[in-house]
Amino acid sequence: MQTTGATIKARATRAGPIILGIDPGYDRLGYAVLKGTLTKPELVTVGCVSPKGSSHHERLQSVAQAIHELTQTYHPTKASVEQLFFSKNVKTAIKVAEARGVIISELARAGLAIQEPSPQAVKIAATGQGNADKKQVEKMLCLIFKLKTAPKPADAADALAIALTGLIG
Amino acid sequence: MQTTGATIKARATRAGPIILGIDPGYDRLGYAVLKGTLTKPELVTVGCVSPKGSSHHERLQSVAQAIHELTQTYHPTKASVEQLFFSKNVKTAIKVAEARGVIISELARAGLAIQEPSPQAVKIAATGQGNADKKQVEKMLCLIFKLKTAPKPADAADALAIALTGLIG
Repeated sequence: MQTTGATIKARATRAGPIILGIDPGYDRLGYAVLKGTLTKPELVTVGCVSPKGSSHHERLQSVAQAIHELTQTYHPTKASVEQLFFSKNVKTAIKVAEARGVIISELARAGLAIQEPSPQAVKIAATGQGNADKKQVEKMLCLIFKLKTAPKPADAADALAIALTGLIG
Repeated sequence: MQTTGATIKARATRAGPIILGIDPGYDRLGYAVLKGTLTKPELVTVGCVSPKGSSHHERLQSVAQAIHELTQTYHPTKASVEQLFFSKNVKTAIKVAEARGVIISELARAGLAIQEPSPQAVKIAATGQGNADKKQVEKMLCLIFKLKTAPKPADAADALAIALTGLIG
């Protein structure tokens, strides 16, 4: 897998939950790892993976491998994977859903508790508002985690907000 | 997993391909195992699995487990998994696509060559016609495999036609 995005070196601790947030995708898969509490969350890592493979099944295997590597590296205790909502492009929806199935199955195989927040729940966790836009979410992420700029690409920032939701439930 | 449908005892042979056909599903997953050639295909088993689990991730894990058991039991050399086409219920489409992602990933993990025929290609393999209806497909399956009645439920019969496609490519 190819990993991009800011990475802050993990300081592993077994105390308290370690949340792995995933923004599911077929072309790009955002991830973030948090520990601490909702009032004092601590960013361990945030980034984005580009699954590789010339065939459909190679790509899905690359998704499975990425999840395996994330769980082996950061030892999360809980995962938060955003639900999918699609209305326009059914072909894209099916590919992303196939990748999401692989992600959920791999996280369950690793023995993690899995939470599946809706996009609205993710916005509420980050901003307190279910109808917040992308910019508002990114601004709050910068405030919460004392970041100068929001993680890039957008999939990584999304994963960070999704991970935050995992600290609530 | 709960398995239903007719099962013909496998006579394992390492000569020639052994095809595992899968009709992907979230509630029911049809499967069929064939060996031989397209002109002389031999039915090893055909049936249907109902994945279990009260939560979404348990259900997807049950799908993964079913595929694992099928590959361990029948040692297929190649898999044929029908493509998905949806237009109406996006919610159902996403669930089936998630299950299909798990199926493809597990088959790839088992090292199988994977073919992904379109519904039209499956009909052509069984009947020679891409616009054949379900009854015509079932009638041809009965003729080809010398069955008195088509495998039940329909997911099992579909999987048998899908497996047949795997003998072509």
